[in-house]
Amino acid sequence: MRFSADEWLALHELHAEYAAVLDARELDRWPALFTEACSYKLQSRENHDRGLPLCILHLDSRAMLHDRVYGARETIYHDPYVQRHVGGPPRLLAREPGEPGDTLVTETPVIVVRTKRDAMPEILVAGRYLDRVVPTADGLRFAQRWLIFDNDLLANSIVDPA
Amino acid sequence: MRFSADEWLALHELHAEYAAVLDARELDRWPALFTEACSYKLQSRENHDRGLPLCILHLDSRAMLHDRVYGARETIYHDPYVQRHVGGPPRLLAREPGEPGDTLVTETPVIVVRTKRDAMPEILVAGRYLDRVVPTADGLRFAQRWLIFDNDLLANSIVDPA
Amino acid sequence: MRFSADEWLALHELHAEYAAVLDARELDRWPALFTEACSYKLQSRENHDRGLPLCILHLDSRAMLHDRVYGARETIYHDPYVQRHVGGPPRLLAREPGEPGDTLVTETPVIVVRTKRDAMPEILVAGRYLDRVVPTADGLRFAQRWLIFDNDLLANSIVDPA
Repeated sequence: MRFSADEWLALHELHAEYAAVLDARELDRWPALFTEACSYKLQSRENHDRGLPLCILHLDSRAMLHDRVYGARETIYHDPYVQRHVGGPPRLLAREPGEPGDTLVTETPVIVVRTKRDAMPEILVAGRYLDRVVPTADGLRFAQRWLIFDNDLLANSIVDPA
Repeated sequence: MRFSADEWLALHELHAEYAAVLDARELDRWPALFTEACSYKLQSRENHDRGLPLCILHLDSRAMLHDRVYGARETIYHDPYVQRHVGGPPRLLAREPGEPGDTLVTETPVIVVRTKRDAMPEILVAGRYLDRVVPTADGLRFAQRWLIFDNDLLANSIVDPA
Repeated sequence: MRFSADEWLALHELHAEYAAVLDARELDRWPALFTEACSYKLQSRENHDRGLPLCILHLDSRAMLHDRVYGARETIYHDPYVQRHVGGPPRLLAREPGEPGDTLVTETPVIVVRTKRDAMPEILVAGRYLDRVVPTADGLRFAQRWLIFDNDLLANSIVDPA
């Protein structure tokens, strides 16, 4: 199962925008990359593979994403850090026909590197995104973005979305 | 020398499938990504650059790949870990005309991140793939995939193919 | 804002070549990837974001790039290491119409992994490239390549260009 060239370019535009927004910590722009009803999840591979519900974060509307941004910005005290997302090529798992265009079900490997002040970069998360991407009037958006991380141990709590 | 858009999409489909199979530890699906006669090698950069034959692993048929999978699964006792492959863009080194299609000789940078239980992710391998990719009735397949790793020191023996 | 398929392929050819040249330490081939007048900068994110001029390295002609290569090769004594560049998808920030083709202003996340002899790979730099890429008779070339790195701490001085 293969992307068309147009899908490839549009999907990478979305992926690159997503990474850039988080890596620049422009969190206010993060929710706009999702559809109004959506599913954002941050879950360990172990729980995902066993079908267990427990996860670090589960947000299911754009309003909840905004709320999380507010929380990360205003209410959580933490050691400052910046993120850097680097990913592998996406893989098309399924294509669901629809209007105005197909929904793309994809899987994309990712590592998130975290850098704190006066410290060397370290890998915060290794894992993969499980996404459902849909066409909207504003371009492709995430109806689902789940980050399933390999590491059951997390280096301190994750504050920003990843 | 440049890929066509079709080659780019087909090659990334193969690369993404390869990474997904190993990262999900679905090792039984690994040999099917190679041609029947093939060359899989895991070799240090130092030995590769000097033309020395010594390498960690050298398998030259799909049957040997199956044998290695059996070994990794059934006979080797080791501390469990999972892999995550993240790569840079492939580079076209040569194109060899043929039927039903050209053989693509490519080079692709890669890092393999390893995560053990209750531990943070760490870089297991940094290096590059040297591949020969050929069209078959089932799509593109590896006639050659050599992982040339930069690190002459390896964090314990590598058990799974990488 | 989106790349055309041709731009995507041409840009990745340049990116892959750039990484391959540095990772193979074929430094003599590095300046040829830039235009005659050019800007190469290695700067911390903190200084870049504040508009401060201080940076690790700033070279603004191909001749200066050659000079730096000579320096890295002949005059600096250092613990040998090799690099491995792995990047995310590029993002098109602006397109400036021109002849014989548009200038592409892009941003690309990158991590550079460094491996020393008898040591495991480690992340040397996490950051992003801020590029201006222009068409020339020899294909796309960098009129600007700035590596803005997240880590204000650097693991020893960087010797080779990155």
